[in-house]
Amino acid sequence: MLELYYGAGTCSFVIHAGLEIIRSLTGTQYTSHRVKVHQGEQRTPQYLAVNPQGQVPVLVADGQPLTQVVAICDYLDRRFPEAQMLPTDPWERAQAMSQLAFMNNTAHPTFAHVFMSHHFGEGEAVQAELKRFNRLRFREHLERIQQWVPAGDPDGWFGGHPVFHDVYALTLLRWGGLAGIDPDSLPRLWAHSRRVAASAPVAATLVDERLELNVYRQPG
Amino acid sequence: MLELYYGAGTCSFVIHAGLEIIRSLTGTQYTSHRVKVHQGEQRTPQYLAVNPQGQVPVLVADGQPLTQVVAICDYLDRRFPEAQMLPTDPWERAQAMSQLAFMNNTAHPTFAHVFMSHHFGEGEAVQAELKRFNRLRFREHLERIQQWVPAGDPDGWFGGHPVFHDVYALTLLRWGGLAGIDPDSLPRLWAHSRRVAASAPVAATLVDERLELNVYRQPG
Ligand SMILES: N[C@@H](CCC(=O)N[C@@H](CS)C(=O)NCC(=O)O)C(=O)O
Ligand SMILES: N[C@@H](CCC(=O)N[C@@H](CS)C(=O)NCC(=O)O)C(=O)O
Repeated sequence: MLELYYGAGTCSFVIHAGLEIIRSLTGTQYTSHRVKVHQGEQRTPQYLAVNPQGQVPVLVADGQPLTQVVAICDYLDRRFPEAQMLPTDPWERAQAMSQLAFMNNTAHPTFAHVFMSHHFGEGEAVQAELKRFNRLRFREHLERIQQWVPAGDPDGWFGGHPVFHDVYALTLLRWGGLAGIDPDSLPRLWAHSRRVAASAPVAATLVDERLELNVYRQPG
Repeated sequence: MLELYYGAGTCSFVIHAGLEIIRSLTGTQYTSHRVKVHQGEQRTPQYLAVNPQGQVPVLVADGQPLTQVVAICDYLDRRFPEAQMLPTDPWERAQAMSQLAFMNNTAHPTFAHVFMSHHFGEGEAVQAELKRFNRLRFREHLERIQQWVPAGDPDGWFGGHPVFHDVYALTLLRWGGLAGIDPDSLPRLWAHSRRVAASAPVAATLVDERLELNVYRQPG
């Protein structure tokens, strides 16, 4: 029995879309619980009982909670090897884990400085500087991720169907729009993300979370 | 053939000590290259050819570089299963990966805000606030990690010999000293880290990197 706690548009999209991909390939059902992160529902006593860290995503597997995107991706891949969500060759898998780790520990927190600057320091001037500085760094991180986009326009990161990497990259590029980064300025990553978004399970997840893919608004 | 690029006292200690533990258990040799991180050697063209991200650690396995602490831990465990660096039961392993991910994507970057605040924003006032705010958060993260310390005073996180988790926790607690957090104020984590530091492979790594375990200095 698999249950997901997710917040619409947050990093839990990686797991939500990942579960949809796994369902489309293996028929495995799961239930999902939407956490209203913008309303602070992750800090209610009920939610803190699920995850004392007050964050999404949480995967509840057979009644037991598991946190952390990277750990959940690794676990789901090992539980459903037939879905091929990560490479099986040990070295390719290690490189794949390295890319996921970078998205998770570097790109993702850098965006948080722009979008949730109050999580890093107090005061308007401080938060304005955090936004300015980290928007520039976030762009650099998206450029690095763009270099990793597979050549030859496959649907998925490793040549087959979309996998966690594709939906993490899509999520980060989507967040870029909120940080004032025009996806058209990252053409390979944008073209890839549009292909990924058009695949049935990812499209269904976007509908379920009521998300537009392009949230960039021209300044002015 | 395994080679490690490390910076003394940095997060690469997790891999350096991990390789020493693996050597002590399996006889596997490795070579190590010290990168003078405090002198900026990680930004030289030579080093950027090894890791374009300009960071330690890098594990070079059979001539190919692998970055990211979490990916290297996972890879080394799978390459040397006899060393038992991570649990083999899938669910225990998933929880272990979740803890490593938290140390790596939450505790570790929070310390970076204190020690390398110029990586997050410009200006003296901004950096002073980043230090103040994140020192408090870092303490909370160490408290969470302290709750994970295994009961019954074993040498290692999972009951046996020290593993990556032990040396990551030790590294973070050591950094706490640099952030003005007295290790005596986290007694279970401190007692555990001293036990871990006394084990032969970890003690050898501390000597090799010329590190004191307790770098806390009483203010004033
Ligand atoms: N390190 C965690 C990060 C999870 C995270 O950042 N979750 C965010 C959404 S993207 C969240 O729950 N934010 C709500 C909050 O912090 O109050 C992971 O990789 O799973
Ligand atoms: N996300 C990387 C972080 C590596 C990292 O933060 N390395 C630091 C030392 S702890 C470093 O090389 N700093 C030098 C610099 O950034 O210039 C990982 O988990 O391996």
